[in-house]
Amino acid sequence: MKETFNIDKEKHFSEWYSEIVAKAELADLRYNIKGFVVFMPWSAQIIEILYSLFEKELQSKGHLPSFFPALISEENFKKEAQHVKGFSPDVFWVTKVGETEIEKLALRPTSETAFYQMYNLWIRSYKDLPFKLYQRANIWRYETRATRPFIRSREFYWIETHNAFATKEEAEAQVQEDIKTTDKIMHQKLGIPFLPLKRPEWDKFAGAVYTIGSDSLLPDGRLIQQPSTHFLGQGFSKVFDVKFKDKDGQEKLVWITCYGPAMSRIVASIISMHGDNSGLVLPFIVSPIQIIIVPIYDAKSKKVVLEYAEKIKKDLEPLRVKIDDTEKKPGEKFYFWEMKGVPLRIEIGNMEIKNKQLTLFLRDERKKIKISEKNLSSEIQEQGRKLDERLKEKADKWFEKSIVDAESLEDIEEAIKNKKIARCNFCSTESAGERCSAIIEKELAADVRGSRGDKQEQPKGKCLVCGKKANVVVYVGKSY
Amino acid sequence: MKETFNIDKEKHFSEWYSEIVAKAELADLRYNIKGFVVFMPWSAQIIEILYSLFEKELQSKGHLPSFFPALISEENFKKEAQHVKGFSPDVFWVTKVGETEIEKLALRPTSETAFYQMYNLWIRSYKDLPFKLYQRANIWRYETRATRPFIRSREFYWIETHNAFATKEEAEAQVQEDIKTTDKIMHQKLGIPFLPLKRPEWDKFAGAVYTIGSDSLLPDGRLIQQPSTHFLGQGFSKVFDVKFKDKDGQEKLVWITCYGPAMSRIVASIISMHGDNSGLVLPFIVSPIQIIIVPIYDAKSKKVVLEYAEKIKKDLEPLRVKIDDTEKKPGEKFYFWEMKGVPLRIEIGNMEIKNKQLTLFLRDERKKIKISEKNLSSEIQEQGRKLDERLKEKADKWFEKSIVDAESLEDIEEAIKNKKIARCNFCSTESAGERCSAIIEKELAADVRGSRGDKQEQPKGKCLVCGKKANVVVYVGKSY
Repeated sequence: MKETFNIDKEKHFSEWYSEIVAKAELADLRYNIKGFVVFMPWSAQIIEILYSLFEKELQSKGHLPSFFPALISEENFKKEAQHVKGFSPDVFWVTKVGETEIEKLALRPTSETAFYQMYNLWIRSYKDLPFKLYQRANIWRYETRATRPFIRSREFYWIETHNAFATKEEAEAQVQEDIKTTDKIMHQKLGIPFLPLKRPEWDKFAGAVYTIGSDSLLPDGRLIQQPSTHFLGQGFSKVFDVKFKDKDGQEKLVWITCYGPAMSRIVASIISMHGDNSGLVLPFIVSPIQIIIVPIYDAKSKKVVLEYAEKIKKDLEPLRVKIDDTEKKPGEKFYFWEMKGVPLRIEIGNMEIKNKQLTLFLRDERKKIKISEKNLSSEIQEQGRKLDERLKEKADKWFEKSIVDAESLEDIEEAIKNKKIARCNFCSTESAGERCSAIIEKELAADVRGSRGDKQEQPKGKCLVCGKKANVVVYVGKSY
Repeated sequence: MKETFNIDKEKHFSEWYSEIVAKAELADLRYNIKGFVVFMPWSAQIIEILYSLFEKELQSKGHLPSFFPALISEENFKKEAQHVKGFSPDVFWVTKVGETEIEKLALRPTSETAFYQMYNLWIRSYKDLPFKLYQRANIWRYETRATRPFIRSREFYWIETHNAFATKEEAEAQVQEDIKTTDKIMHQKLGIPFLPLKRPEWDKFAGAVYTIGSDSLLPDGRLIQQPSTHFLGQGFSKVFDVKFKDKDGQEKLVWITCYGPAMSRIVASIISMHGDNSGLVLPFIVSPIQIIIVPIYDAKSKKVVLEYAEKIKKDLEPLRVKIDDTEKKPGEKFYFWEMKGVPLRIEIGNMEIKNKQLTLFLRDERKKIKISEKNLSSEIQEQGRKLDERLKEKADKWFEKSIVDAESLEDIEEAIKNKKIARCNFCSTESAGERCSAIIEKELAADVRGSRGDKQEQPKGKCLVCGKKANVVVYVGKSY
């Protein structure tokens, strides 16, 4: 690295994003199929860690892993009318094997229609319920909007859970539990605040009764949807005939929910939320290298310093720690690992060895502190925890200030101009409100993203578009 | 479970295999696309553990994770002549999006032609080498032979490594390292012995200079290929123009190897190798539940016994432990978890609590022993380790006896009849030997699987088919 990374993230976010994706070697966009990218080791390792966070959490909540085929028959795919209508234009179809035409098969854009035909076979009695599976999988959708690495592409890496219940109440409780799972991992652990928003009727998942998306904000004022959870009601269980014999001896349809956290999308928020003008800032919990050790030596001290660095590395394992013993100058190493977002750096030279005191660099504050060699591992874990806490607090403060009340279209316009989210009183998120939403979209290029999905907010007065009685508080913002 | 599992595995292996896959809920074959199955939680969890064993091992050997698209352009796919010839008939092609025809895209049957176009962009100098990436991925091949869950299907779950080197020697050393990786995990840890066999010229990976497969034996005397490693030479680097500037300033083509352990296939060997007439026997290291606790109580003792069971469970964590507190009778629980292959069972009743001595059932020997409550976790880990060691020893002994020397076609016939592998002197595994191989295949329905890939075996005398001078020792067996 001769050059150092230095782009004003706030002023030139889009450029900053593209540059850091390339410089930190997160993804390569030069793969020769449009909308498909290669995830390089630095982001692949982050994605693997995200998978393990989510899988552990889901397992603790009673979901079990499974693997379903990536191909879905056309017959299955067409069973649920709204679903097929919503997804059809985006589906990649397999129509040939070798030179031979076959009955066309959908490359899964999502797996409801793969899972529920099996639920039909597996679920028999109330004793089988709740029935909660998940799979780690990639899915494919032909996005027509501009693709952007991690934010939107035609292939993405997610987990999908599919859950069947005996009652509506249990199913809706699962939806609320999903919001808590998103909060626990994405917000509490990774420091990415979000609004759980119940989507308007015209923007819900194709085939759902309702959808609760998790909207995070990017620094350019655009909202991206993070893990969303869907209450599917009994629509799919009806068409796939997923019934169980209840305690009362009656055959009943199950109630279904599904939930889809996309690892690659979360990486977009990690990059955007925490990064600064010097590059990435990765939370300690998710960084592929948590501590980079930079030994500083001359020809005379090289052996002693490197040996000492090895000892420190051993002390810190199983934390993810690496010694940079390349031929580069210390300053170059500093810049390189700062740009890559490694949260903690330990510098070791003669002075540190003599004083049994290490120099610790905190990536988020770009500040050096001295720490004792004693209890090193627990001290470093504590510093990592504190760093993640600071990232979260900073993000929370910013996010809180980014939500402003709007009482008119002008207020919304002002909010959008200032890269914020507008909260406003609105007539309806049922189909009656679609006209008002269309006006906002047309005049301000902004979207009604929905109302709080985790709690009730009391509307006051009138809809700021049509002036009719407000029935709902909605959040309006620019979508990615 | 009213019924108990009881099929003579040795006599009726095929029936045994199908039944245990269904009864233990490993896979469901009723998915409505031929050749595609659903992996249910019990096998999905095993597959996840296998992935983590392989990923950890590969990372320790300097391979880094990455994710490449599942779709490959026709142009890329066709670049290497042998490769396209070998794979073309099996490729699933995506030709449509929604209702629109697109330029056809291959659903990857393997990813050489995805990786190496990027290696062309990424590798510049000898300093970039060795360059070792892997990805966890599924792949699709239209198998025309009969499919069988885990053994052969049209979608499978694997890891593929792709490695570039400056010299032929380093590349070939990687191939040998891959054999050691297979040995370390599949043989040492999972107790599945195998022969690393260099495939004959006519049976190598399409596009490779040579292939070393790992042949394991199923109880019915059929060989299945486990992880194989390929020395690709410079064929792919030539067509994808993957060059580096060497120390001497010259531009040179890299040498490439790849390696492909398939998790789903390894599950087939675990099922087949260790299972017995009562069902699965899972190695401790890979079982989703390592210890099942069965509490034995009456109405009076229920509370005390369950509390004690909870305490034991806590003591054993983070081992994978579960209490079966369902309403079934103890005997039913025993049969159920034996059939599922859980390696260790702890029985807890009044007597055990009083004596502070637990009853431990060893699944492989179907034997009960008493163990003290003291140092429980380390004792159980030791018992688990020993169980895995016993499984391996038993398998090794059987495998060793399954390899017999053959000096004539009649000897091979006899070996095959006895479900064994024949070792014989053979003219050549280069193209000159293909005729003799074809005779064996035609007359005995057996295949020349290759010669040792990890060491040199000295041939003696003449080829047992054509009578010409023997140049190689080969292994002949029935293929799956």
